Amino acid sequence: MTDSTLEDVDRIARAAQLAFAVTVRTDDRTRAAWMRAAADALDADAATLVELAGRETALPEARLTGEVARTTAQLRLFASVVEEGSYLEAAIDHPNPSTTPPTPDLRRVLRPVGPVAVFAASNFPFAFSVAGGDTASALAVGCPVVVKAHPGHPETSRRAAEVMTAALASAGAPEGVFAMIEGFDAGLALVDHPAIKAVGFTGSVRGGRALFDRAAARPEPIPFYGELGSLNPVVVTPAADAARGAALAEGLAGSFQLGAGQFCTKPGVVLVPEASALEAALPQHLVPQPRLLTPSFADGFAAGSERVAGIEGVEIVATGAAGDGPATVVAATDAPTLVAHAEELLEEVFGPFTLLVRYRDEAERDAVIDRMPGNLTATVHREADDDVAELVARLEEIAGRVLFSGWPTGVAVAWAQQHGGPYPSATSPFTSVGATAVRRFQRPVAYQDAPADVLPPALHDDNPLGIPRRIDGRLLLP
Amino acid sequence: MTDSTLEDVDRIARAAQLAFAVTVRTDDRTRAAWMRAAADALDADAATLVELAGRETALPEARLTGEVARTTAQLRLFASVVEEGSYLEAAIDHPNPSTTPPTPDLRRVLRPVGPVAVFAASNFPFAFSVAGGDTASALAVGCPVVVKAHPGHPETSRRAAEVMTAALASAGAPEGVFAMIEGFDAGLALVDHPAIKAVGFTGSVRGGRALFDRAAARPEPIPFYGELGSLNPVVVTPAADAARGAALAEGLAGSFQLGAGQFCTKPGVVLVPEASALEAALPQHLVPQPRLLTPSFADGFAAGSERVAGIEGVEIVATGAAGDGPATVVAATDAPTLVAHAEELLEEVFGPFTLLVRYRDEAERDAVIDRMPGNLTATVHREADDDVAELVARLEEIAGRVLFSGWPTGVAVAWAQQHGGPYPSATSPFTSVGATAVRRFQRPVAYQDAPADVLPPALHDDNPLGIPRRIDGRLLLP
Repeated sequence: MTDSTLEDVDRIARAAQLAFAVTVRTDDRTRAAWMRAAADALDADAATLVELAGRETALPEARLTGEVARTTAQLRLFASVVEEGSYLEAAIDHPNPSTTPPTPDLRRVLRPVGPVAVFAASNFPFAFSVAGGDTASALAVGCPVVVKAHPGHPETSRRAAEVMTAALASAGAPEGVFAMIEGFDAGLALVDHPAIKAVGFTGSVRGGRALFDRAAARPEPIPFYGELGSLNPVVVTPAADAARGAALAEGLAGSFQLGAGQFCTKPGVVLVPEASALEAALPQHLVPQPRLLTPSFADGFAAGSERVAGIEGVEIVATGAAGDGPATVVAATDAPTLVAHAEELLEEVFGPFTLLVRYRDEAERDAVIDRMPGNLTATVHREADDDVAELVARLEEIAGRVLFSGWPTGVAVAWAQQHGGPYPSATSPFTSVGATAVRRFQRPVAYQDAPADVLPPALHDDNPLGIPRRIDGRLLLP
Repeated sequence: MTDSTLEDVDRIARAAQLAFAVTVRTDDRTRAAWMRAAADALDADAATLVELAGRETALPEARLTGEVARTTAQLRLFASVVEEGSYLEAAIDHPNPSTTPPTPDLRRVLRPVGPVAVFAASNFPFAFSVAGGDTASALAVGCPVVVKAHPGHPETSRRAAEVMTAALASAGAPEGVFAMIEGFDAGLALVDHPAIKAVGFTGSVRGGRALFDRAAARPEPIPFYGELGSLNPVVVTPAADAARGAALAEGLAGSFQLGAGQFCTKPGVVLVPEASALEAALPQHLVPQPRLLTPSFADGFAAGSERVAGIEGVEIVATGAAGDGPATVVAATDAPTLVAHAEELLEEVFGPFTLLVRYRDEAERDAVIDRMPGNLTATVHREADDDVAELVARLEEIAGRVLFSGWPTGVAVAWAQQHGGPYPSATSPFTSVGATAVRRFQRPVAYQDAPADVLPPALHDDNPLGIPRRIDGRLLLP
């Protein structure tokens, strides 16, 4: 057994708190250098990391190699985000005696919240794991990180943690700024620990909700930034199906079977017209699957597919050939059946499964959308003269990213990315991917009539950091 | 009885949801015009509002008149915030095939979350009540608002709600965009209602925590933006006390007795050197108090003062003359006693009470600070050659606003304001006062490869709103 003890957790959380006293005062360039050192070290160790992860997750080498590149690019993106400086939201209001009440000299900046707990995901052993987006965005703004490793890839996690720890130390980061723990009970103790000031989480609705509840129930509740589950509905208009249903079938098959259907953005519900060309063409694109990430995922997949298949009015319209893992399953039903059994049919089936929902008209289609829980994504396939304004308005209500003529898998790490929509796809109005993910781990502090010697550099009159700032309500570029 | 029934709550929440379908598409200038119409109408009715509030709260006319002005200035500030447009955080990333994974065309904007519940405060019958900051910031970004009135000033609340409703309707806002309910059970039903997507709250730790827990326990948890309680510590250095202890006593007396000590930013704990000039001069500045806002506040004040006075090592060093309300109470103790009885002594006593804590050295002073729960403010009075860097670093950990050579009461409504620190002073990393308060009621949506006809105007290529935007990671001004 390698589970961390409660004493380990306490020691590690206290060390993170001590490190925070250093990181909270460290300048942005120094922290950016730490991030780049970590990225370089992970890149240098990529072959070993990919080999370990391949053995533990059964994900293919090309995918894992790409994922390491994505992970290190993410560390470097966050380095550039903090150097750019907008993330501090620096604002200065000069005194104004004419307001009610009078305005003193007020200067506001975002600061790091303190040590952060990060619960790693199973399905991205790098990009949403030890050195993934939550870790990168917290470290970037000056928060020490304690990762709770996912038990699905322990050796990969330990190796990544060793590489991170060594690289951060070599780059001059304080001891305790990064650590990893293992074990279920250790994870609970971490969420409870008073030194921890926020939690990042990627995983299931059940596990995530339990931790969310625990974070909210602390004597001092802390924010829980969770990504819990998503059906990622796709809507195909009759015109799009008529024009390119066969091509859409191929695209859909590629997306929902990618990574054996174990993506958070897997299209799990596809709204298609009755007797669609997409449905007719889909079976020929099902491919044999590798084994799933863990035995419990395989059990969950089998149980979920059976549950759906057992509902009256639902049929299994295609099953893929056997591989090392479970055969791909495509189920189908009609919109009224979905609405009648919404709760059972709209529970995510993790793995190579998707549900086609046939609609006769827009009213049926919209009734399905209105029953959907929150999603990371919603996708529209339409032809140019389809008026989809009303449809998009509906989809904005249930998703954090609305996409067109593409597929939701493949989440770019960019400034304008949004990964997180209404619950349960996220538990907060933030993103866990992309530049603004850092905001989760910051809290504002204002200084009133402060002498210059106590102000952080971001708020000095002469703007020594050269960052965008808002002065007396006007945004100014450096 | 005027309590709203559960049927009322359901009808009103559904009407807010219907209104949201309109407000979510309304352009910023239109909503800004609604805000200004509401502000003008409240100003026009100020005499009646002040008269009603004076009768219900016993707060003096000058204070209430100023508070109406502050409230309407706040509505107008939020109108200008949405017109300025940075609040949308509009960002556009053009396609970039060289990233891993490739970046599509991504465009991100903040949108309103949906209908918002606002729990009005007792102590600001205008600025944190029916037409107060939570209402203004939610309406400004396009969220319909349902206010739960505070029972301490029902007539004032009804009048303000009538004025708001009529003004918004005249300005063309949709029916249901604003409504008010009354009653404890109705408030609970409002937090539970599926149409409600966020809660704003100002009040006690006990009441706020119960509602926070309720919001977190919903099937779909919603963010609860609460301001629950704050001790607002003040630190006076030995040099500052020696140089101007008598003047500091006068300033402190003015601040902690303001509004009969019923401000969320009242200085409730004051760290002073032993045998301070401040303590010696304070008794002469105690003034007779008006009655407190409600009978239960008077009971709570009596119980709280007695509780503190009963702790061994605590003495009542001054009591004010009798007025219509309770006599002002100044208690004092030493730092070790405070640390030993931190839980009892650091429970807020709402009303004209403050606790002096005498420290012998910086170690004693810091031990007290390290026991403090989160605060809205922390104040430093020092002389120019006092090195307070370490002290400020400690205070940043426990407060949202750190101020110098002033007093925490009087919260300016400004761009750089921060009203909210660690729990229990706030339940989220946001502010409830000032321009950025709007962010509480927004959530991000990204559009991927979206045709121009479905994009919101903020994300059109030609920037028709003329707002600051981030293009390919670079912040650009219009």
